[in-house]
Amino acid sequence: MKLHGYYRSSAAYRVRIALRLKGLDVEHIPHHLRFNKQRDPAYLALNPQGLLPTLETDHGVILTQSLAIIEWLDETFPHPRLLPDDPVARAHCRAFSLAIAAEIHAVQNLKVLNRLRGLGLDDAIVTAWAHDTIAEGLAACEALIATDPAPYLFGPIPTLADICLVPQLYNARRFKVDLSALPRLLSAETASQSLDAFRLAAPELQIDAE
Amino acid sequence: MKLHGYYRSSAAYRVRIALRLKGLDVEHIPHHLRFNKQRDPAYLALNPQGLLPTLETDHGVILTQSLAIIEWLDETFPHPRLLPDDPVARAHCRAFSLAIAAEIHAVQNLKVLNRLRGLGLDDAIVTAWAHDTIAEGLAACEALIATDPAPYLFGPIPTLADICLVPQLYNARRFKVDLSALPRLLSAETASQSLDAFRLAAPELQIDAE
Repeated sequence: MKLHGYYRSSAAYRVRIALRLKGLDVEHIPHHLRFNKQRDPAYLALNPQGLLPTLETDHGVILTQSLAIIEWLDETFPHPRLLPDDPVARAHCRAFSLAIAAEIHAVQNLKVLNRLRGLGLDDAIVTAWAHDTIAEGLAACEALIATDPAPYLFGPIPTLADICLVPQLYNARRFKVDLSALPRLLSAETASQSLDAFRLAAPELQIDAE
Repeated sequence: MKLHGYYRSSAAYRVRIALRLKGLDVEHIPHHLRFNKQRDPAYLALNPQGLLPTLETDHGVILTQSLAIIEWLDETFPHPRLLPDDPVARAHCRAFSLAIAAEIHAVQNLKVLNRLRGLGLDDAIVTAWAHDTIAEGLAACEALIATDPAPYLFGPIPTLADICLVPQLYNARRFKVDLSALPRLLSAETASQSLDAFRLAAPELQIDAE
């Protein structure tokens, strides 16, 4: 399989973690977001949204949207599971993941920040937008976690929720968000970062890292 | 069950459609978004994100995030199915749904527009932000649909993708987005709107409609 990504894309980072948790080795094809390489016609033919990541399977199937890709991985390569078995726990795990992917990351990704810059807003205001969106969103995420992680957000195995959390905390630190009031999120992050699957998916270890 | 919603919330609208497709009758509890009722402490205790909708089950389980709620409904009340059976089609259906929920709606919902107003941007610029986000996002969604709907986006039964599409098109018309270059999306919408489940979930038919 081929993963079209970018080392610092949170969404690509999520898929890298999931692939490693499943023990799947893929070819990594970087597209430089800051040079707008994801808008090249050849890439748009694969992914009309012009977003990263895209997963190309060995059968030529094109999959987009990180959460949809990870659900497909979980249905296609069932071990280890990336979602809890219990339907209510699955719903809470998916809700947490969406609270990050849709309510935080989608509102502070590079595309949105560039749209803000396009309105003539200066860098300090754009950076504050990202900072505040992440800070408020992570505070809500901390409140969504009802009990102390044991050791992961939804129990003894890392799930989609942890896969979404770790890249968002990486992003939070880039924007200097104070994480001290988020003990449950930090505890789950520590557990996740003890695993090679999370550590080896880190942006700075990717072939296109700068 | 109780659905905490707001007549014009796209996310609540999605869950209303899904509940009706499943034939489930629920109590509707409106929270007025424009008066910020979703920030009341009693509601925040249910939904720490301060977002609509929230579904309370008869067993006191609290579910948030519309896509997670709909996946739970589909797992708990399996007939009729709201996702295709084939894993690749499921992945494409989920990707389309996320292309709307995360890439369009999350970037142009009332919360984000209020954040833009808070930067001192005037109404015309804020409205243009919503318009452009929807127009670009729906154009990408049209490109994601590889074949003519038959009659729904992913075949003979309405799925999560149609459930996301119809509220987003409603929203697009509020912002006067030109939909004429989106024949596949409009064709699937026509099929969906022929069903009571979609028609009766419309904002103007809700108890809190103004």
